[in-house]
Amino acid sequence: MPIRNLLVFLRYDGRAFHGWQVQQNAATAMETFQRALEGILREHVELKGCSRTDAGVHARRYGVSFRTACAIPCEGLVRALNAALPNAMAALSCREVPADFHARYSARGKRYVYRILNSEIRDPFLEGFVYRLAAPLDAAAMDAAAQAYVGTHDFSSFCNAGGGVRDPVRTMFSAAVTRSGALVTFAVEGNGFLYHMVRIMAGTLIDLERGVLPRGSLPEIIAARDRSRAGFTAPAAGLLLDDVFYDLPKGGDAL
Amino acid sequence: MPIRNLLVFLRYDGRAFHGWQVQQNAATAMETFQRALEGILREHVELKGCSRTDAGVHARRYGVSFRTACAIPCEGLVRALNAALPNAMAALSCREVPADFHARYSARGKRYVYRILNSEIRDPFLEGFVYRLAAPLDAAAMDAAAQAYVGTHDFSSFCNAGGGVRDPVRTMFSAAVTRSGALVTFAVEGNGFLYHMVRIMAGTLIDLERGVLPRGSLPEIIAARDRSRAGFTAPAAGLLLDDVFYDLPKGGDAL
Repeated sequence: MPIRNLLVFLRYDGRAFHGWQVQQNAATAMETFQRALEGILREHVELKGCSRTDAGVHARRYGVSFRTACAIPCEGLVRALNAALPNAMAALSCREVPADFHARYSARGKRYVYRILNSEIRDPFLEGFVYRLAAPLDAAAMDAAAQAYVGTHDFSSFCNAGGGVRDPVRTMFSAAVTRSGALVTFAVEGNGFLYHMVRIMAGTLIDLERGVLPRGSLPEIIAARDRSRAGFTAPAAGLLLDDVFYDLPKGGDAL
Repeated sequence: MPIRNLLVFLRYDGRAFHGWQVQQNAATAMETFQRALEGILREHVELKGCSRTDAGVHARRYGVSFRTACAIPCEGLVRALNAALPNAMAALSCREVPADFHARYSARGKRYVYRILNSEIRDPFLEGFVYRLAAPLDAAAMDAAAQAYVGTHDFSSFCNAGGGVRDPVRTMFSAAVTRSGALVTFAVEGNGFLYHMVRIMAGTLIDLERGVLPRGSLPEIIAARDRSRAGFTAPAAGLLLDDVFYDLPKGGDAL
């Protein structure tokens, strides 16, 4: 039986899971996917997820790869997965990838989006998908400040304890803050991210904008390589793993 | 104590409520709002809601009016309401209106939006906010068909039993079907709507598009004034009361 290496893209509502990876006796996105997948393949699979999302963090296009001896075609696997998965998770697509492909190590980069509902009033349609902040934010000023993140830096100031990472140097390809009505969105693309990095990046932009941290001090905060110099860890609900990039031909996800 | 007549706009997630109005021993949007409001005003209030939304139907901007002897300023009332209401409901604004204003009878019209996720795969981010249909829909063809709804018609073909309405004539100001990615949206504005009317209008457009009903037959279906000639009642989850229109100066809702 030839072994295939498959890449599946998932979307999930982070409210339903205690993060991607097993931590305690709580339902995780990985466990949920693994149970559905093994029920279909009738074999044990070793999953390689593209990221360890925290509890409450959402994923719009999450890559997970695994090897299987099962001959089920990709289209049939997607259909079977969606029949088995709970409503909070969907399999968007499946494709065969080279034997050495690994959903995490083969990623060229990822895009995260952090969403702030800048309003005194909550939006029932966005509950659990945004961090709400009443104090008015100047998105243009935040966008200008966020440009300091772009480039290759030691991001130790933006890493909480617990990630177990050796090399804190990462490259950010782009960073942008935009406003659409009451929604202020921070989008960042980079080749990799440290533990809680995007949430601390977002919290620091907010603290700079509100004057909790001195305006214009972001380059110094980065240079300090000291977590205590950066801002707060913005809540998980606002964070979305928007996409993960691979050097693969563009596939046509349904959503 | 002068009696004021107040108009509050609400937003609510229909999944949390068994419709607007009390029907059985189930939590309704009206009860939830009334309990919060009376707790603040410390008096009984008679609520006039702009529409009787069904269980599962969402409201983006729902008008409700009531008289009160309480002197609390509008801004303070909004703040107190949002502190008292559950996360699934928010008070967007409050304003004083003329004594004869009634949220339902003073409405010039309403806009409803029906959303179809036209995809084989569910979207975990839109669960409970769309009706999912895998069969491909031609939004342009549906839009052309939907123009038959515009104008003044006897809409008896689009009314389920149980509404208790005498006059089934209504005027539709506009109707449109558009597509954005996998999302097909039917938006309709009119001076009033019969029981389940928008859901039957949406279901009929789907049945016409899929060939369940003869293409091009919508004018005849309307003219028949016979519920059995129209299509199915599309599920509540796809329906959103998008807005209600009053002859009042435009107020600045926060959301």
